[in-house]
Amino acid sequence: MGMSYVVYPGAHHTRFHHALGSMFLMQKAVSVLRSKNVDISPSEEEGLYIAILLHDIGHGPFSHAMEHSIVHGIPHEFLSLKFMEALNDEFDGKLKMAIDMFTGKYHRRFMGQLISSQIDMDRADYLKRDSFYTGVAEGNINSERIITMLNVVDDQLVVEEKGVFSIEKFLVARQFMYWQVYLHKTGIVAEELLMRTLQRAKLLAAQGAVLTGSSALMYFLKQQVGKEEMTRDVLKEFAMLDDYDIVSALKEWTGHEDFVLSELSQMIINRQLLKIKMKNKAFDPARLKKLCKQLKEQHNLSDDEASYFVFTNKISSKVYDPSKQPIHILLKSNKVKPLNKVSNHFNLGAISNSITKHYICYPKSLD
Amino acid sequence: MGMSYVVYPGAHHTRFHHALGSMFLMQKAVSVLRSKNVDISPSEEEGLYIAILLHDIGHGPFSHAMEHSIVHGIPHEFLSLKFMEALNDEFDGKLKMAIDMFTGKYHRRFMGQLISSQIDMDRADYLKRDSFYTGVAEGNINSERIITMLNVVDDQLVVEEKGVFSIEKFLVARQFMYWQVYLHKTGIVAEELLMRTLQRAKLLAAQGAVLTGSSALMYFLKQQVGKEEMTRDVLKEFAMLDDYDIVSALKEWTGHEDFVLSELSQMIINRQLLKIKMKNKAFDPARLKKLCKQLKEQHNLSDDEASYFVFTNKISSKVYDPSKQPIHILLKSNKVKPLNKVSNHFNLGAISNSITKHYICYPKSLD
Amino acid sequence: MGMSYVVYPGAHHTRFHHALGSMFLMQKAVSVLRSKNVDISPSEEEGLYIAILLHDIGHGPFSHAMEHSIVHGIPHEFLSLKFMEALNDEFDGKLKMAIDMFTGKYHRRFMGQLISSQIDMDRADYLKRDSFYTGVAEGNINSERIITMLNVVDDQLVVEEKGVFSIEKFLVARQFMYWQVYLHKTGIVAEELLMRTLQRAKLLAAQGAVLTGSSALMYFLKQQVGKEEMTRDVLKEFAMLDDYDIVSALKEWTGHEDFVLSELSQMIINRQLLKIKMKNKAFDPARLKKLCKQLKEQHNLSDDEASYFVFTNKISSKVYDPSKQPIHILLKSNKVKPLNKVSNHFNLGAISNSITKHYICYPKSLD
Amino acid sequence: MGMSYVVYPGAHHTRFHHALGSMFLMQKAVSVLRSKNVDISPSEEEGLYIAILLHDIGHGPFSHAMEHSIVHGIPHEFLSLKFMEALNDEFDGKLKMAIDMFTGKYHRRFMGQLISSQIDMDRADYLKRDSFYTGVAEGNINSERIITMLNVVDDQLVVEEKGVFSIEKFLVARQFMYWQVYLHKTGIVAEELLMRTLQRAKLLAAQGAVLTGSSALMYFLKQQVGKEEMTRDVLKEFAMLDDYDIVSALKEWTGHEDFVLSELSQMIINRQLLKIKMKNKAFDPARLKKLCKQLKEQHNLSDDEASYFVFTNKISSKVYDPSKQPIHILLKSNKVKPLNKVSNHFNLGAISNSITKHYICYPKSLD
Repeated sequence: MGMSYVVYPGAHHTRFHHALGSMFLMQKAVSVLRSKNVDISPSEEEGLYIAILLHDIGHGPFSHAMEHSIVHGIPHEFLSLKFMEALNDEFDGKLKMAIDMFTGKYHRRFMGQLISSQIDMDRADYLKRDSFYTGVAEGNINSERIITMLNVVDDQLVVEEKGVFSIEKFLVARQFMYWQVYLHKTGIVAEELLMRTLQRAKLLAAQGAVLTGSSALMYFLKQQVGKEEMTRDVLKEFAMLDDYDIVSALKEWTGHEDFVLSELSQMIINRQLLKIKMKNKAFDPARLKKLCKQLKEQHNLSDDEASYFVFTNKISSKVYDPSKQPIHILLKSNKVKPLNKVSNHFNLGAISNSITKHYICYPKSLD
Repeated sequence: MGMSYVVYPGAHHTRFHHALGSMFLMQKAVSVLRSKNVDISPSEEEGLYIAILLHDIGHGPFSHAMEHSIVHGIPHEFLSLKFMEALNDEFDGKLKMAIDMFTGKYHRRFMGQLISSQIDMDRADYLKRDSFYTGVAEGNINSERIITMLNVVDDQLVVEEKGVFSIEKFLVARQFMYWQVYLHKTGIVAEELLMRTLQRAKLLAAQGAVLTGSSALMYFLKQQVGKEEMTRDVLKEFAMLDDYDIVSALKEWTGHEDFVLSELSQMIINRQLLKIKMKNKAFDPARLKKLCKQLKEQHNLSDDEASYFVFTNKISSKVYDPSKQPIHILLKSNKVKPLNKVSNHFNLGAISNSITKHYICYPKSLD
Repeated sequence: MGMSYVVYPGAHHTRFHHALGSMFLMQKAVSVLRSKNVDISPSEEEGLYIAILLHDIGHGPFSHAMEHSIVHGIPHEFLSLKFMEALNDEFDGKLKMAIDMFTGKYHRRFMGQLISSQIDMDRADYLKRDSFYTGVAEGNINSERIITMLNVVDDQLVVEEKGVFSIEKFLVARQFMYWQVYLHKTGIVAEELLMRTLQRAKLLAAQGAVLTGSSALMYFLKQQVGKEEMTRDVLKEFAMLDDYDIVSALKEWTGHEDFVLSELSQMIINRQLLKIKMKNKAFDPARLKKLCKQLKEQHNLSDDEASYFVFTNKISSKVYDPSKQPIHILLKSNKVKPLNKVSNHFNLGAISNSITKHYICYPKSLD
Repeated sequence: MGMSYVVYPGAHHTRFHHALGSMFLMQKAVSVLRSKNVDISPSEEEGLYIAILLHDIGHGPFSHAMEHSIVHGIPHEFLSLKFMEALNDEFDGKLKMAIDMFTGKYHRRFMGQLISSQIDMDRADYLKRDSFYTGVAEGNINSERIITMLNVVDDQLVVEEKGVFSIEKFLVARQFMYWQVYLHKTGIVAEELLMRTLQRAKLLAAQGAVLTGSSALMYFLKQQVGKEEMTRDVLKEFAMLDDYDIVSALKEWTGHEDFVLSELSQMIINRQLLKIKMKNKAFDPARLKKLCKQLKEQHNLSDDEASYFVFTNKISSKVYDPSKQPIHILLKSNKVKPLNKVSNHFNLGAISNSITKHYICYPKSLD
């Protein structure tokens, strides 16, 4: 949930909860599919549990902010795989099948789909969990019922026809969660600030400034780590990083002598964020320029320094994308059709559109 | 919920529950509006409670089936009003204001809207209640939050902007309840059978046949009662009718000598209903004719008798109708706009369309 | 729940719900026990489902009031067995094993215990269900967790040690339900009135008075039916009886010429019950006598007639009875001990005591 | 909840949630009492909200472990008061009334009781919240119903008679929470380890060892801070401390050269705790001695060093203490009686007894 807790204080659940929850749902799914005579061997079962338990292990603390600051261009899926490989070595090759499932190489396609697809156990868990902890009832879904409706045809995961309502509800709930939570402007500005704080710290570290921070955090601030550099030793260092490292550092940095670093850190720690405005269209560059100029004069800053506090950006997402691996429905007639050919209750077109939001951020003092 | 319990066995809640629940929500609404400095006098408060408590009192048992059999062309609102007037006489005019509110004549428009509009306390209660008792989680709404978001501008009920998500959720939930519950084909065929049983009984009574039934039920089977005939005495008789009269009579009629009456009664009591098929377009009259012919031959029936068992019909409804008294949103800018000018998350167009379903019913033996 | 709905209007759930619910829990229990390597064959599984599905089928409408009026000294277990035997004949002996389990004759003791004991699936369902529909949260139990803790040792049902808290909670919840619901004085007086109305009707029928009522009800009012008389034909008649027959008759009897019958019927239908006082000790007979005398004078009644309206009685029950088949706990050490040797958190002694309540009922006018 | 999350991973709620929740319940209580004509002025209302919002502000991170390591003999109530006084100065005396209420000096006794007593808003919130987040359903209480039953007689908080069941349920739930959560042996050993880690760090700091830690944490490790030393400046330092400081330090200390400090830190961070055994009686000192000896030999430790890993202790608590300010019940007769004179359903004696548990802890390797 990144920084969502600044908006929804209850959103303090952890990745550990999510991993356990996804595995719990996978157990349900295995039991449901077996009761429908889908053959799943004990080692396949184990593979599914391992893969879903570890699917998110590559996420660093505040993962999205992290991926653009602490490390360079390393998606969390890459890191999850690296961890699985390391564990596979440690456990004498026992994670082989889980890794094949996770990377989609396992020959039984539906197993990969249970781990990663538009109705995977990952989403089935986090949507319900996030709805529960934020209190946004609109996002609540009936994961158990959806799982009960799963089946397999031609090695492909399908939903039985009488589950169409539940799937529609699931997509509508996802839509609500995007609008009310994941794309909430206050969460977004907090996330931007965090990313920028870490980027600033990294720049200062490169310039040789004195910085307080845990050993693990300092490691990643002091070097550029891309995919290439992610050796087993560096991975071990990465594994040590968690929210505690980040927040503790921010707390110490509130008193740092660099204006940018201390201001950004204070904003997050004291929850006095930048102002953020959001709309469906891009903001006028002139407006950005004007605000930048104001701030530079106010605090005697360089262009570069001001750009930490005044900026525009956009964020996009898609609730349901029928183009890539659509959700398949098993009709009572035994035919299989993609969801958008079956559902006529909602305008799935609307849900299938990508949502894009533009935003501008700047200090409240400039208003 | 009419005959919905044949599909959702938990749906055994009563109109009494709904009346209490609506009044409870009205109490919340009054308290919320007063906290926003909307002036509501003690006698207006009492009027609101009486009006909502009695708004459905005119419903007979299995009301929809009833309105087309036991009585003739008397909508339940007419009967609710008749009851309120009778009570008003009994209580020395103390229901005057409640009656004005119920009939929409009271000068403060929002009070009538709390009792009857697209976001009235009636809907706020029954949608949640029906979702709860059927177990159809998709229909669950957050009535309390919606009520918290109510306000009054220019004597008109409005929803504050930050409640738009909850209103959308409310409309989507309503849509789900229509598809999954209110328009469920099994509930519809049960309702058709009940209506036809009562119509048949009424015809037999007119022909002088011997029929068992409670005094109140026999009264309405033996005479034609339209709006004109609904005197205070007849109203009293009507008030005696409830589900017990209808179901007890059906049970006795299962052994009646009239083939049509006993067959229909058995179908309902033994839950062996007609087959029903549903689609978006009208059924081919030739198909109806053919099925009719088959049945007539099978049981040696007249055209008229066969028509009780083989028939087509349609049912329509609208989740949200922006044309008549739309839901109004109070923007943060203090402007008031209709919902469909504000909400851009869902395709409200889809929700605003009328849903029409055609169906054909016939005995399973004809398949 | 008998007449409890006069106190808790939500308590409108039916025996049908309870039968389905108990079977659902039995399915869970079978699955849990099998996962612990308790061998249950497919035919034993079927037997368990049939037995629990039918365990309450012998209950007539408002069963407790019924057992002392409509029929004579026939406990509902006797009737459930009669129905099972009839079905066994109809289904060519396929219910044989279920019947053995139900009567406790099946050689694997724990199967009988799943159907009837102090932690059977019957209680696991009704306690939760009654708590849910009455809204008495204190009675809510975690049936699923209790079932997860079940195991079998020496053919006997046991609860694993870590489930002791849940069992204690279950007993405490049962205690709360007795005090707040099952022994609620208003429910008790309603039940007494119903029983007395039926007794009066039976007396009048024996005296040849004209009475309205369904064919099935009239059958049982006109003859004395004890265990002996319960032939297959009479059983069929009994099966036709439900709440609709009773309530419809009461409605008609409100206008009966017999003062006692019409008064009692009106009290129930109009919810204007007798006054009831309850205490832990017996009431002074002099007080009863005095009230009786008052009533006789007021309405010019005989002793016998007055006794329908003024009477004392008592009611007892036991939340947990360690003397007969106690709940057994499987310790981590693999020893099995009765619950009261294990639990030291609550004073189970208190819970194990029989609760007895004395009450006196009389018309409010005598106060 | 201290370290309870090692047992109940969902227990990640924060003191911020609890403060908001308690204030929310206080708002309900004010509204209920006013509806019963208890006069509460606007400034008293504000005082109640401030007092309950701040009642726990003096808790440090992992408060119980803290009170015996970081600071010396300073109970959190003392610190809460210090913070309120500082805020009072900052807000020009506006917290005066809240402080009087918090310290029990305000002349209207029931206001102090709402903040601190055996049915205060503090308990009403945390019991329900802890039950919710741990998933221990046995601890769930109906806070809203309890609050609805509150009243005031002779300036004293009372519960109306019909709320007795809810109060009993509340005490039983509290009992369950003690046994299942607050006194859970795994949570206790984690707490012991944390306290001992901090004590060790403090000792090392006094000896001049090099230690990593946030500025605020290092401040308290380097000096002895008792009530006397808690000046405004020190208070400010104390306010900077939170879970992040502690956990970050522990993570760094896992690599410290002091065997005791690094072992203890690793145990907590890697969740490989000491073995703990619990019983109702004290452990035999000979057993402790023997285990100590074993450990000393195994790792070549001094007596003092070994005592960090092998020790006994005890923990006590009381669910309900009728001796100090009992819960008062307002009978229907308008008399007020203490709870234990009214409730005869449970053996309150059992609940009123103090619970004491003895435990012994030692490394698993010694088993």
